[in-house]
Amino acid sequence: MSAASVNGTAATGGFRTLTLSCVNRPGIVAAISHKLFELGANITEAQQFDDTESGKFFMRVVFSPFEGWKPERLIPEISALAAEFGMTWTIKENARPTRVILMVSKFDHCLVDLLYRWRVGELAIEPVGIIANHPASVYEGVDFCGIPFHYLPVTGSTKAVQETLVLQLVEETGTELVVLARYMQILSNEMAAKLSGRCINIHHSFLPGFKGARPYHQAHERGVKLIGATAHFVTHDLDEGPIIEQDVERISHADTPEDLIRKGRDIERRVLARAVRYYTEQRAILNGRKTIVFLD
Amino acid sequence: MSAASVNGTAATGGFRTLTLSCVNRPGIVAAISHKLFELGANITEAQQFDDTESGKFFMRVVFSPFEGWKPERLIPEISALAAEFGMTWTIKENARPTRVILMVSKFDHCLVDLLYRWRVGELAIEPVGIIANHPASVYEGVDFCGIPFHYLPVTGSTKAVQETLVLQLVEETGTELVVLARYMQILSNEMAAKLSGRCINIHHSFLPGFKGARPYHQAHERGVKLIGATAHFVTHDLDEGPIIEQDVERISHADTPEDLIRKGRDIERRVLARAVRYYTEQRAILNGRKTIVFLD
Amino acid sequence: MSAASVNGTAATGGFRTLTLSCVNRPGIVAAISHKLFELGANITEAQQFDDTESGKFFMRVVFSPFEGWKPERLIPEISALAAEFGMTWTIKENARPTRVILMVSKFDHCLVDLLYRWRVGELAIEPVGIIANHPASVYEGVDFCGIPFHYLPVTGSTKAVQETLVLQLVEETGTELVVLARYMQILSNEMAAKLSGRCINIHHSFLPGFKGARPYHQAHERGVKLIGATAHFVTHDLDEGPIIEQDVERISHADTPEDLIRKGRDIERRVLARAVRYYTEQRAILNGRKTIVFLD
Amino acid sequence: MSAASVNGTAATGGFRTLTLSCVNRPGIVAAISHKLFELGANITEAQQFDDTESGKFFMRVVFSPFEGWKPERLIPEISALAAEFGMTWTIKENARPTRVILMVSKFDHCLVDLLYRWRVGELAIEPVGIIANHPASVYEGVDFCGIPFHYLPVTGSTKAVQETLVLQLVEETGTELVVLARYMQILSNEMAAKLSGRCINIHHSFLPGFKGARPYHQAHERGVKLIGATAHFVTHDLDEGPIIEQDVERISHADTPEDLIRKGRDIERRVLARAVRYYTEQRAILNGRKTIVFLD
Repeated sequence: MSAASVNGTAATGGFRTLTLSCVNRPGIVAAISHKLFELGANITEAQQFDDTESGKFFMRVVFSPFEGWKPERLIPEISALAAEFGMTWTIKENARPTRVILMVSKFDHCLVDLLYRWRVGELAIEPVGIIANHPASVYEGVDFCGIPFHYLPVTGSTKAVQETLVLQLVEETGTELVVLARYMQILSNEMAAKLSGRCINIHHSFLPGFKGARPYHQAHERGVKLIGATAHFVTHDLDEGPIIEQDVERISHADTPEDLIRKGRDIERRVLARAVRYYTEQRAILNGRKTIVFLD
Repeated sequence: MSAASVNGTAATGGFRTLTLSCVNRPGIVAAISHKLFELGANITEAQQFDDTESGKFFMRVVFSPFEGWKPERLIPEISALAAEFGMTWTIKENARPTRVILMVSKFDHCLVDLLYRWRVGELAIEPVGIIANHPASVYEGVDFCGIPFHYLPVTGSTKAVQETLVLQLVEETGTELVVLARYMQILSNEMAAKLSGRCINIHHSFLPGFKGARPYHQAHERGVKLIGATAHFVTHDLDEGPIIEQDVERISHADTPEDLIRKGRDIERRVLARAVRYYTEQRAILNGRKTIVFLD
Repeated sequence: MSAASVNGTAATGGFRTLTLSCVNRPGIVAAISHKLFELGANITEAQQFDDTESGKFFMRVVFSPFEGWKPERLIPEISALAAEFGMTWTIKENARPTRVILMVSKFDHCLVDLLYRWRVGELAIEPVGIIANHPASVYEGVDFCGIPFHYLPVTGSTKAVQETLVLQLVEETGTELVVLARYMQILSNEMAAKLSGRCINIHHSFLPGFKGARPYHQAHERGVKLIGATAHFVTHDLDEGPIIEQDVERISHADTPEDLIRKGRDIERRVLARAVRYYTEQRAILNGRKTIVFLD
Repeated sequence: MSAASVNGTAATGGFRTLTLSCVNRPGIVAAISHKLFELGANITEAQQFDDTESGKFFMRVVFSPFEGWKPERLIPEISALAAEFGMTWTIKENARPTRVILMVSKFDHCLVDLLYRWRVGELAIEPVGIIANHPASVYEGVDFCGIPFHYLPVTGSTKAVQETLVLQLVEETGTELVVLARYMQILSNEMAAKLSGRCINIHHSFLPGFKGARPYHQAHERGVKLIGATAHFVTHDLDEGPIIEQDVERISHADTPEDLIRKGRDIERRVLARAVRYYTEQRAILNGRKTIVFLD
């Protein structure tokens, strides 16, 4: 693992979350739990998944220091154990919020919703920037709460430049997660690759149904009886990224496309908020084309 | 309208349901409600829908006789009114159950469920036949309650013959609705056309996602977080028929394809049962590629 | 009916909604639809309900003018018809937003949500005042969008005075609906009576479970597997008002009371927003201890 | 622990599930996982819960033998470990179905549903008896599949005798779980105590709303917009037993009590089936007045 994935300072107390994955073999749980005990850490939550298809093992462990806590040994000894088992792993201090950039186009319902949840302390995020391809005047009535706002418009010819600026901001701000909160521009393959595993999009349909543009109009046209929304990790393959969360609502023949858009806003808001929450709590873990979401 | 669509004998009392559709214009509701009042019928339920896209008007009216009820005038006078407005219409006595044929392949959960609902009086159906492409021995443990069972196997070369036999049974029994209760054979275009508007299928996915074979395996492969089922009218265009009802259930990364199949059975059962119920209560009405479903 | 219940000017065009109730008898639908046709109005939506328990009939009709529209005759002739049938009735122009006062205590999630839905044009309301029993500084970060804010604190001894001030504001502003958006003060019986039928509260439990204070703590204590919220008309009988809308979310043994409060915020928001929507669209109609909610 | 709670023969291979609870302290997970590894068992599923209110720790571990599996040492060594930590624990072989008695009154929808799920291999139960307080003729059309049927009627004066007979059957058949599948007799306190932790009831309301008799009529009377069902462990305190599972469905003002009963049957069926499933998979664990339900 790179040093970057060990978030926070090992020297402080408080809850931490360890996630790991490796080729499955007997003894992983025993080794991890024994090591944490030895280091003076008490396991307060633990979830695991054996993917019998890929033969990979995934685990999420929340632990807190108790008597005899040896924080200075945490990273070296977990590193050593990880090397032994060939693990990919991360450790994060739960108290430290995840640094996020929120990207938005014209529709601001997801942006406003995430900002509200952050303001009342519901999401452990620290918004370090808002990037929009529309000027600030479009979001009149939205309180950005002092978060730096970046107007970065996109046209066919400026896309490469704009994406470079976005990536610069991601770098400079130490952003851990980019949230496409109804950002309606398609990322280039390069951009998608660079943000792999740390960029979440909300798609306004129940994927894999109604890919592409105007999904609510497609849904109306097809006459479905439920509409949905999908939060997924962004990949170069549009609308094919690993799904983190989905939800639906009932509609009827009498609903117009505008009604679907209205009902859809509610679904999009809650689906994206849940996905961001899962990410910040180290619950959503990439597994090839899919995700593992460890819930309580 | 053909005489066949006027179900039951106008001479008897009891609740009736009128459905109609025509090009929209002012005065339809006034004309219908006035006529029913004149005939001594009291409207106890009424729903309508203006399809602003197609310019068509749809209505469902439940009525019951009161003082001065003139049953002998019902059909002639509604016919005359319908002619004036260019209406397609049906009248059905609510007390008379809908004659259905249930078609099934190996998996019998929908069949068993529909039979149970019929047995306890929950569905206003009269099963006049069960058609299976497997022998009766496959359904050991299922009580057919005296309903004639027809084993009509299908192979590539016998399909045309088998479908002719099915249609013969439909004719002979006066079947009004054919329910494909997990009948896994694809109907020929001719067959689909002949049963148009009176054949309901249950598809084990949340259409339009995962068309075709093994949808639960497709869903597992794609990593969706909800699975569903879809009841639809059968058309020649496979998995594209007008949708009557859909529902979903939450799944997780830990669910195997077998778990999805198990959870899916529950969804399929209730979705198909609702669709059959809507049909028998004249609530599900074809509207081009879509359906109107008049709920309370 | 009082003149006050005929909203808007009959002289203008556009869609209108008529609601009515009376003792059930044959011919009501015929009379109403005939009268509207005569006046040059086309019925575009209609729903009805026969309450067989109380013997009362309820109807909601949306209509729009067509050729020959006689707006000046609308109110007198509907009045005359209503007198004949002993109807209670209202007519409202759909384009005219409902004048609302929003009342709030410390938790502002429902307030913020309703303001957002109003700002994007999702709810046909015109907020004419915000009343809080906490000072404006509590709602830092909420943009009141120029809506007058009234800080009206309450103590045991000042309750009567405070309620008088609230009622004065209701009067002066021509408020049609008072929304208790997590307003945590119990209204006096007199106040509840005066606002009868035009005051909606959101209760943070799935009534009738967990009445009274701290319902999420009660739910946690009891170990339920779903929590909910309930929007209801306010009556003198606390937590017993006619229910307009309810919804639930799944919880687990691992959820703390704080988790329930967080999940509950999402339910409260959408349940209250739906109830307000139903009210403004004349869909929620009082029927004794219950409501009728006419959905599409 | 008593020998009775170690189900199956330790000598055989295959998956096993260990559940345990004890006063929380650091090192439990490490000790358990280390011990299982030592014995040649690989952990394939593990869930835990720290109840911070009671200070108790709960765990469910599924494990399978690998190389070096020492089955003869399993029970003695887990016993020793359990003694050290003061654990209550059970081990069950997953392949061995749970022996159940199904009790039923007049309404047989839950009984029929459970039998179907058992027949298709969906539930890992072995029904060893059906007990009814109505004669077999009431269940005409239900195939008991050779399961012994016991008609044990109850009157006020025979209740004690009847319950003795039920307990005798429980004993003789080695029944592990008694399922009250809409058994409408109230168990005596003594009976409830004797079956504590191994008797599940389905209540036809969303508890704690609508306790007692005729809950669907109560729900109709109150005008709720959702109805539900609740599966719970039976205790002497009627309708207050620890809740295992709940679910709801939407209703409207137009639904009669009979409609609620019909819709309720669907909810009852799936809620009870899930609860039985959780029990047989050692997922539902008593925790005072509540349950822990370990889902994937």
